[in-house]
Amino acid sequence: MALGEFELIRRFFDRPGSGIGDDCALLTPQAGMQWLVSSDMLVDGRHFLSTVDPAALGHKALAVNLSDLAACGATPRAFFLALSLPYERAADARWLQGFADGLFALADAAGIRLAGGDTTAGPLNICITVMGEAPVGKALLRCGARVGDELWVSGELGDARLALEAFRGTLQLSGEAFAACRQRLERPTPRLALGEALRGIASSAIDLSDGLIGDLGHLLATSGLGATLKVDTLPNSAWLAAQTEATRRLCSLAGGDDYELLFTAAPGAQLPDVGVNLTRIGRIVEAPGLHLRDAEGHPLRFDAGGFDHFKSP
Amino acid sequence: MALGEFELIRRFFDRPGSGIGDDCALLTPQAGMQWLVSSDMLVDGRHFLSTVDPAALGHKALAVNLSDLAACGATPRAFFLALSLPYERAADARWLQGFADGLFALADAAGIRLAGGDTTAGPLNICITVMGEAPVGKALLRCGARVGDELWVSGELGDARLALEAFRGTLQLSGEAFAACRQRLERPTPRLALGEALRGIASSAIDLSDGLIGDLGHLLATSGLGATLKVDTLPNSAWLAAQTEATRRLCSLAGGDDYELLFTAAPGAQLPDVGVNLTRIGRIVEAPGLHLRDAEGHPLRFDAGGFDHFKSP
Repeated sequence: MALGEFELIRRFFDRPGSGIGDDCALLTPQAGMQWLVSSDMLVDGRHFLSTVDPAALGHKALAVNLSDLAACGATPRAFFLALSLPYERAADARWLQGFADGLFALADAAGIRLAGGDTTAGPLNICITVMGEAPVGKALLRCGARVGDELWVSGELGDARLALEAFRGTLQLSGEAFAACRQRLERPTPRLALGEALRGIASSAIDLSDGLIGDLGHLLATSGLGATLKVDTLPNSAWLAAQTEATRRLCSLAGGDDYELLFTAAPGAQLPDVGVNLTRIGRIVEAPGLHLRDAEGHPLRFDAGGFDHFKSP
Repeated sequence: MALGEFELIRRFFDRPGSGIGDDCALLTPQAGMQWLVSSDMLVDGRHFLSTVDPAALGHKALAVNLSDLAACGATPRAFFLALSLPYERAADARWLQGFADGLFALADAAGIRLAGGDTTAGPLNICITVMGEAPVGKALLRCGARVGDELWVSGELGDARLALEAFRGTLQLSGEAFAACRQRLERPTPRLALGEALRGIASSAIDLSDGLIGDLGHLLATSGLGATLKVDTLPNSAWLAAQTEATRRLCSLAGGDDYELLFTAAPGAQLPDVGVNLTRIGRIVEAPGLHLRDAEGHPLRFDAGGFDHFKSP
């Protein structure tokens, strides 16, 4: 039998000191800080499959939101969870416990607390709103890139898409490669320490959720500038590096679900070392648009936009 | 054809100065203020029928969240809209325009701005997170009621439930009565001015969304106290007053969707006049639990809990 709404919240989501129970959560800002807020909705069958490990789902639902805070250089403070659950899920204590475990493990690691939310019956849907803080005027924004700034990306690109293609059966991976790439797809790591360390250093930043080309397009749109992108310098894992050139480019340029940070910085800027690889992949130029270059510097055509939820995949 | 995700946001939800576009919205707190935050999720077929007027849906989705701010005495500042839309809705400009019109008409009236959000394909689901401000230490909370405090409610109770029963066919209403009660069900008025005016006056407050008995139970649970409730003094509209005693009591005590404020105040407290009727309906007592009284002061039994999303209706 499905647990009652309030019992479900008490048992799985109300932790000591959570403050859940009033109509609103009460948050006291620190002096000299601004709030950064983002809201993301994950839908069954669209952002994840209902067969996914519930702990991975709990992790990812929070991770994609924390990645937005990372992109803004914000320190995570509080999040709100709105959850629509089919009856069979609301009756499935193992699933709920797994989801809560994955969610809170990442919340604890990121230093963010669940401050409130909502639970209802309905098709599985997870909406998380995160709030973080940054000193006034220090948040990283999409605008701010200048001509001549260098374009940087954290970590490695494309493994999440490589795992997705393996799931879809369009290519085959070894067991080891599949396990590693699947981890990137299902348990992305929000680059919070990097985002905070880039305050005052990066001139603009965005997180990579829709794919490099799409997200770089969003970043450039705010400044009206363009960028050259050296496609063959894009950082890839050994698994993706072993694939065909077409697969490498598809996964690196239009992969989606990378949750790495893409940022610009003036040439010679002292970039922070927080244990995450940073790769210089291009440069901001005056000519609007995205100018792809191959290893020899020749123009390259690539036809794939970012992910759009209302276009067919 | 469905509009693209970004085109849909631009066309219907991005208004001048909205600031939509970065990974997070940036909010600067005013000195001496605390934030109050609430998140509510509305699901198709559960909280509304897909045939509802989209403008009414846009209004109600925001109204139920603003009602949480009202219950806390908060001044509305910013909200976030996460929207999951079936393809046919994303292609329906008339529906989207109606939804946006209803949403923004209430937002403008309440002085709250859309600061960000998310749009995705999926079963129709609306998750709104609202943020408001109140001076430090002045927010209304559920706890705080004292023995001897009087129990007050705003407006009239039960019309929303009366409309629902008419929709269900369990009773019949005249055309005029149905139109008036349906308005209460589909376009509730958040009691924002009253909530703000009750800062420093009410000792505790909650908004009525699940039904008077259920919500009063939540309020009492935080203090461990009880209340006497004079059932026949509950404020009703002429439409509900004309119904049988059983219908009046069901709709007033366990109606749900009233979005009136229930609050406690010390006897003799000077209550604000903001153009909303206030009715004294009972008193806080030491004996835990809810003690219903009829017109003669005799104990009354009534068997209906508040609304629980995971119990059958």
